[in-house]
Amino acid sequence: MSSLHLQTYTQRALRQKNPAAKLLLETIDRKQSNLAVSVDVASPKDFLAIIDAVGPFVCLIKATLLLRRLFSTHIDIIEDFTPALLEDLQALSTKHDFVIFEDRKFADIGNTVALQYSSGVHKIASWAHLTNAHCVPGPSVITGLSSVGLPLGRGLLLLAEMSTKGSLASGSYTEAAVQMAREHRDFVVGFIAQRRMDGVGTGPNETLEEEDFLILTPGVGLDVKGDAMGQQYRTPREVVLESGCDVIIVGRGIYGQDPSLVDSIAAQAIRYKEAGWAAYLARTQIGSL
Amino acid sequence: MSSLHLQTYTQRALRQKNPAAKLLLETIDRKQSNLAVSVDVASPKDFLAIIDAVGPFVCLIKATLLLRRLFSTHIDIIEDFTPALLEDLQALSTKHDFVIFEDRKFADIGNTVALQYSSGVHKIASWAHLTNAHCVPGPSVITGLSSVGLPLGRGLLLLAEMSTKGSLASGSYTEAAVQMAREHRDFVVGFIAQRRMDGVGTGPNETLEEEDFLILTPGVGLDVKGDAMGQQYRTPREVVLESGCDVIIVGRGIYGQDPSLVDSIAAQAIRYKEAGWAAYLARTQIGSL
Repeated sequence: MSSLHLQTYTQRALRQKNPAAKLLLETIDRKQSNLAVSVDVASPKDFLAIIDAVGPFVCLIKATLLLRRLFSTHIDIIEDFTPALLEDLQALSTKHDFVIFEDRKFADIGNTVALQYSSGVHKIASWAHLTNAHCVPGPSVITGLSSVGLPLGRGLLLLAEMSTKGSLASGSYTEAAVQMAREHRDFVVGFIAQRRMDGVGTGPNETLEEEDFLILTPGVGLDVKGDAMGQQYRTPREVVLESGCDVIIVGRGIYGQDPSLVDSIAAQAIRYKEAGWAAYLARTQIGSL
Repeated sequence: MSSLHLQTYTQRALRQKNPAAKLLLETIDRKQSNLAVSVDVASPKDFLAIIDAVGPFVCLIKATLLLRRLFSTHIDIIEDFTPALLEDLQALSTKHDFVIFEDRKFADIGNTVALQYSSGVHKIASWAHLTNAHCVPGPSVITGLSSVGLPLGRGLLLLAEMSTKGSLASGSYTEAAVQMAREHRDFVVGFIAQRRMDGVGTGPNETLEEEDFLILTPGVGLDVKGDAMGQQYRTPREVVLESGCDVIIVGRGIYGQDPSLVDSIAAQAIRYKEAGWAAYLARTQIGSL
């Protein structure tokens, strides 16, 4: 494993060329938080309430299902709410100083994803600093998205692995995904994964320039190990210290079942933020030995 | 390769248990057409005009980008058009007797895809006979979709391969995708692929019940071999006769650049329909030797 991730977020921000990657590392450093919250709730009101509650403690909000949720009930909701919701989300991003990641999981050919990213009433590229894509269609999914996002200073995360049971994103798939990322380093800033990807997919005699892909890691929990739908959970310490990941993504572990309990939601966010930061400090201590 | 696909569509329809698979095979037989048209145009008016023009000659319409196109310009279009467009599409499906396939490419974990499939103003499961999914998240993508679609008599196609250059859906990925399909045979009716998948992913000494997955094949063209975005094209004869696929999917090769030229669009549809059917007849002749 390369040792770049043992440096501080500050040091690593200096070397990043992609604006979205730099912004994320600077935000983590400024807020002393490598916590991202994935907000997946049924009502726009709850969506915003949770983000406002966790906002001070996170570096990033993952808007997992924003597109679906915007159109969740009936046509009036769209008309009344959509543009306002996107504006409110951006206002909260400014107020609380966090990066927005739209978990779109693009997975189609170049032409199609370019239109999906730029067009429609959502115009994801216009408000999401980061989005993500599956590599299964091949490199055209990256070049298609890059043609839209790169001029706007956006960044792309690739799904090199998934934390669900029986996922096919492993082995040679993961290696090929990392090779694709390496060939589009200006736009691909990192991975949604469970471990670092530095050097993955390179031959034994191949020398690489030092690479510092950001690793954002879902499936993080302090209290449970798995659920009935095949999701597996690991602790912040396992993820950040042992596996060298950079951002922990937590969902219901923070906001539970009742979005109105903003005090307890904030308390959980602080708990995860502290666990994630302690793991990071332990990691940089290793780096400074 | 198993020989089931050398039988007639009629014979194969009798053995299918999934209602959507049975409907598709019966429709192919009734209309003597294994042609599907993928309609990807900017305006709802053009979308419906093209479908009305090609409708008499197709077994299936692939609504590639329906979700995006519905929201393509501004909010008024949604309000005025969305419910009407879905109703019009269904009316054309009845008028011209074709199956609707929403090319959604689901690619998330079980909980998420179940909600994406059932919810929102689109309610894909309520109007699309068939939809499709990437296998990369593992089996939960199938069980999540099946929980919604199976009670409605819907069917799922898996993306076991993709026709773009550098696609990761090959080798062990394809084998795992077929194994997943086999384990969910009630809901998974076939594949989006370039060849038959019978027996793929089985060990040398493993005996399988005869399986008859439907193969729907994009990237079909009579006039061109490839485009700048990495799409590769094969002829109906190559696809149906040589590779044993069941449905040819054609897009711009049929409706070109000007959606108002309905007569020439219909003429192209007839041309592809005849080429696809001739290839099928040649195949069943082999089967009856």
